[in-house]
Amino acid sequence: MHSFTFFQDIINNELHQNKEYFNKFPTLLYEPIEYTLGMKGKRIRPVLTLMACNLFTNDYEKAVKPALGIEIFHNFTLLHDDIMDNSSMRRGKPTIHKKYNDNIAILSGDAMSIMAYKLIVDANPPELSKVLSEFSKMAIEVCEGQQYDMDFEEITDVRPEQYLEMIKLKTAVLIAGSLKIGAIIGGAPTLDAEALYNFGINIGLAFQLQDDYLDSFGDSNTFGKKIGGDITANKKTYLLIKALELAQGENKTSLLELLSSTNTEEETKISRVKHIYTQLKVEELSKAKMNEYYSKAIAALDSVNVEDEKKQGLKYFAEKLMNRQY
Amino acid sequence: MHSFTFFQDIINNELHQNKEYFNKFPTLLYEPIEYTLGMKGKRIRPVLTLMACNLFTNDYEKAVKPALGIEIFHNFTLLHDDIMDNSSMRRGKPTIHKKYNDNIAILSGDAMSIMAYKLIVDANPPELSKVLSEFSKMAIEVCEGQQYDMDFEEITDVRPEQYLEMIKLKTAVLIAGSLKIGAIIGGAPTLDAEALYNFGINIGLAFQLQDDYLDSFGDSNTFGKKIGGDITANKKTYLLIKALELAQGENKTSLLELLSSTNTEEETKISRVKHIYTQLKVEELSKAKMNEYYSKAIAALDSVNVEDEKKQGLKYFAEKLMNRQY
Repeated sequence: MHSFTFFQDIINNELHQNKEYFNKFPTLLYEPIEYTLGMKGKRIRPVLTLMACNLFTNDYEKAVKPALGIEIFHNFTLLHDDIMDNSSMRRGKPTIHKKYNDNIAILSGDAMSIMAYKLIVDANPPELSKVLSEFSKMAIEVCEGQQYDMDFEEITDVRPEQYLEMIKLKTAVLIAGSLKIGAIIGGAPTLDAEALYNFGINIGLAFQLQDDYLDSFGDSNTFGKKIGGDITANKKTYLLIKALELAQGENKTSLLELLSSTNTEEETKISRVKHIYTQLKVEELSKAKMNEYYSKAIAALDSVNVEDEKKQGLKYFAEKLMNRQY
Repeated sequence: MHSFTFFQDIINNELHQNKEYFNKFPTLLYEPIEYTLGMKGKRIRPVLTLMACNLFTNDYEKAVKPALGIEIFHNFTLLHDDIMDNSSMRRGKPTIHKKYNDNIAILSGDAMSIMAYKLIVDANPPELSKVLSEFSKMAIEVCEGQQYDMDFEEITDVRPEQYLEMIKLKTAVLIAGSLKIGAIIGGAPTLDAEALYNFGINIGLAFQLQDDYLDSFGDSNTFGKKIGGDITANKKTYLLIKALELAQGENKTSLLELLSSTNTEEETKISRVKHIYTQLKVEELSKAKMNEYYSKAIAALDSVNVEDEKKQGLKYFAEKLMNRQY
């Protein structure tokens, strides 16, 4: 069983070596794709595909191109999300729609989505039809998650379970699908592939809750971006949704005032909202939810019918995700 | 061998019966898809898939879902093109990005592109891997064509062969690919599938040249939209590109003036540009080019190794395309 960084290197090398996919004409279609894929991502999803495959076979090679397809699909969703959210920066660099324009960002994203399929089909892995069914299901669900996310911006009363369903679709299914696809290509029995999918769903949910938590309560030195961005933007995170559900009396009034106020100074707003969060113990509730998902994830991983030793890589990855400060 | 309208009805019924694909949540993701597919298109591409399949087998049923996938892909490209071109109307109805907004149009388009693959994969037709390779190649080329089309808006000297390459990618490959995919599913020998592809490329090129021609020289009563729209918009059609190539002296000066003038009355501009076209005989040149492609298309169809009688449907379709006034 190889390590996370071992597979990370494989993916980065592949991206480098498969320039024939990106280095083509018309330049304004392919250059943005190369730029997007050249950003130093963590390559979590394709690495999970390879690790899941490697649980069942030493011949993980046959999952490399499909894993690359998954990474390209993930980057396509980021590219289009950045247009929809009007984000200017991604991984410290200008986003495509800012560096070029919206039309180029739309079209090169479209091409990436097709390329993702192309890479999987060209690789012709074992169980191609099953792999592609899983991929399409996951891909459609990511779109559904993104639409719910946009819907939630327009409504005030999002319930916690709606939020959890949204992040499941937007974030967790891609992690779960990456694992399941690797398992299928590796020849896993159905139950094991399902268990890895459940591992992925639960670790994905924990991951997103952790992200929300760190955005408000992380350490700005290690987190890498400004603390409180979600609070400033009134982003409906699990923390805010829980707080709106639990707040009463004075806390409720202040929270609603802070959300609607346009003249509260940014730092004041952040510290006052965090103060309400602390009073309502939504930090603890969020941590408890995270731990619940984490435990479910580990239980799902434990149930996979391969030697414990082989599962160490995925377990270590899950632990690192939970203990990260960034 | 069934007729065009027979297959058209099959596709329209399928779209109607497969509401489980579109009638889902979140509403703002699926409603625009249903709206787009509900517009009365001619369903040319999926019908060609079924006709090509039917050349080689009576069991055209197995190509129905893949044909639907192709129709959904085509509608996805129209939906995203409408955002990029900022078009307000399509088939007499408001476009998605005008009826909803850009974000919804981007995302529901993304979902349609995935659905197209999903329909093909779920159908699991014979030669799935070959079908998907062909589909992905065609889909990427359509993106390349759209990018060239956008590139050409920014440059002044587009050569005729560049324009023809662009419309080949943007329009003809989808028609050619639709036919080839039907042929592959129908079990066609490689040479016959290739011949149908060539038929499609040539008929697609003739089709687009005809479109350009009718936009300037059609009869507004039968054409269905205002004559001269391309001229008003300075659209680099084959007519304009050829005219710019051939014009000399006074004609050249007037043409360049008309293109850069912002205060010429619309009707005056249309009639003066058309007058220059007539003087330079670009109408005839365009007609000649169309006929050249049409002849190549028919030759390719003739070379397909099935009884002539079976090919009558496709031949009739080609003739109708060439003789249309709309």
